[in-house]
Amino acid sequence: MKFSCNQQTLSKALNTVSKAVTSRTTIPILKGIRLEVDDKNTLKLSASDLDLSIERKMEIAAEETGSVVVSAKLFSDIIRKLPNEEIQIEEMEDNNIVIKCLASEFTVVGQPADEFPDIGEIKEEKQILIDKDILKDMIKKTSFAASIDESKGIIVGVLIEMEEDSLNMAALDGFRMAITREAMINEEKKKIIISARILNEINKIMIENEENKDIFIILEDKKALFLIGETKIALRLLEGEFIKYKEILPKEKQCKVIINRVDLLNSIERASLLAKEGKNNLIKMSIFRDKMIIRSRSEEGNVKEEIFVDKDGTDLDIGFNSKYILDVLKVVNDEEIVMEFNTSVSPCMIKPMEGNAYEYLVLPVRISSN
Amino acid sequence: MKFSCNQQTLSKALNTVSKAVTSRTTIPILKGIRLEVDDKNTLKLSASDLDLSIERKMEIAAEETGSVVVSAKLFSDIIRKLPNEEIQIEEMEDNNIVIKCLASEFTVVGQPADEFPDIGEIKEEKQILIDKDILKDMIKKTSFAASIDESKGIIVGVLIEMEEDSLNMAALDGFRMAITREAMINEEKKKIIISARILNEINKIMIENEENKDIFIILEDKKALFLIGETKIALRLLEGEFIKYKEILPKEKQCKVIINRVDLLNSIERASLLAKEGKNNLIKMSIFRDKMIIRSRSEEGNVKEEIFVDKDGTDLDIGFNSKYILDVLKVVNDEEIVMEFNTSVSPCMIKPMEGNAYEYLVLPVRISSN
Repeated sequence: MKFSCNQQTLSKALNTVSKAVTSRTTIPILKGIRLEVDDKNTLKLSASDLDLSIERKMEIAAEETGSVVVSAKLFSDIIRKLPNEEIQIEEMEDNNIVIKCLASEFTVVGQPADEFPDIGEIKEEKQILIDKDILKDMIKKTSFAASIDESKGIIVGVLIEMEEDSLNMAALDGFRMAITREAMINEEKKKIIISARILNEINKIMIENEENKDIFIILEDKKALFLIGETKIALRLLEGEFIKYKEILPKEKQCKVIINRVDLLNSIERASLLAKEGKNNLIKMSIFRDKMIIRSRSEEGNVKEEIFVDKDGTDLDIGFNSKYILDVLKVVNDEEIVMEFNTSVSPCMIKPMEGNAYEYLVLPVRISSN
Repeated sequence: MKFSCNQQTLSKALNTVSKAVTSRTTIPILKGIRLEVDDKNTLKLSASDLDLSIERKMEIAAEETGSVVVSAKLFSDIIRKLPNEEIQIEEMEDNNIVIKCLASEFTVVGQPADEFPDIGEIKEEKQILIDKDILKDMIKKTSFAASIDESKGIIVGVLIEMEEDSLNMAALDGFRMAITREAMINEEKKKIIISARILNEINKIMIENEENKDIFIILEDKKALFLIGETKIALRLLEGEFIKYKEILPKEKQCKVIINRVDLLNSIERASLLAKEGKNNLIKMSIFRDKMIIRSRSEEGNVKEEIFVDKDGTDLDIGFNSKYILDVLKVVNDEEIVMEFNTSVSPCMIKPMEGNAYEYLVLPVRISSN
């Protein structure tokens, strides 16, 4: 293997592919990136942690084909620190590679490429096309609500549901739930579950690759393939039955409030300064006449915040872990949002003024009545 | 105590004063900031960790005088998160304070101000005037070389030396030494030693207060006072004899090299990628004919970097901890610098092409001869 390429292009490609490299693996070769030159013009970079595999192609000028695996961290660090000039890379007989750029010359220990896992071929028959901005927005609005506790099984994943006329996503962790919906005609109804961690990596790759507007998704029984320009992302689907989230949505409400999102965000952030005790970030919300009053207290003091609201229904006192409300207010963009309450022990719903593009459910914290 | 003031002004003042608050103290009141209103127009904020005290005045509109101590962290967090509007602060009978801003109302537990240590009066007779940009630059160029090991005594400090026609600073940690000099007429010869940690805090305050160009310094036997606009910084001088740094400067050189600073910085940063073993960051420099060749190796590979130099003297092989050379190259601005070597076991000097505004001494690491 012997080729030359541009430093910036290679560095960018390595940054994308490295997202599939895990430091936690016990399989040494998975800490590496495979470099593969099959023809005169293309370098294929790949990495995998077995759950997630990323492959990216880039243009090069090759003199010799071949393939080798090199340490993802060291190789990326070296390429990143080289000047923005032409780089020559050559494989030696012992799998080591020599990297040359102007007056710099590195020799890096490599490993044979044949032990590296294959990303696996997928029949690229039925491609589902999704607009990148829509997918990014839906991931942002749901993935934070998935559980981060690997022992909790299926709820570390985000449900992606293709219905006849919509694409839906849902995630929950036992304390809150996030749902997003986007109008979309699907030929086939499908439900898949993807780990929130992997969706977040895909989101980062979409953000880094601004030039590609269309995302193609290919689904198989146990895996999915995301195609973003020259980047191919293969991932293992989570197996199991997702919670029937539609059945948890509350059917009744005693009180509906329209409130300015940024005002509420700022007020809760300030109230949280005095809600650090016992790590449950307890804030109390009182909906009283035309105001929402937010209170919290600790040994260091107390706070009262007032926001005017447009209310329909009864007055109500309810307690929340402020983090769960803040998480929602940070991913939504609307100027005004709707909050629906039933009793002080039933979940609160957060949704848009119109439509059902998102719905959030946040469980309350029981508060003493004083 | 009862006053109103602007949120931004108060937040900025708190940011400055908080630099004297230490979380490591066992004296609870030192985690606080003292608020003091003596007249209708001025709030005095102060904080102290006993080694370093900072006091800052700001304009307010007061209804009642008084003073109180409040938690530095909580009070600063609250003020920072309030909107940029008028804030009203009022002391209650039990030392608690009430903070009001638009629809936010905080009550924060306070402590009586009389237990708070006084910054201490200093006779403001002889003020030494220093240009802020010069002081900032001299601190940047020396303080990093002081020891960070508190058990090492006086070398955690930076020597500040006022000679007849110059202001000099020096710091060292046993592995490297930094010296800066600036032309300045001093009425009196003086030597003081200030902890590098405190000088770094003063540096931050100078950077945050761009509007004040002149710094006034008042020296007493055991303390110094720095005046930066409305900010007064009192600090305890370190006591003891500083190393006679001029006597350590090498008198002989076998080889002098003129080299591009940024090229050298980039080459050493790249070489350091393969110099992580055993934490001593070993790089080898070979000065050979008209080149400097930098090499390092680890189990993962090796690297060779070449830079053209303007050389005067013999060829030489020498080893360094790359961190100590990089630290110097990062604080100096010159396009080209001079490096002087004697033998492979004697320190290297780094200095400017002309003059003696700075001098750095870096001890080599013994290398095997192959």
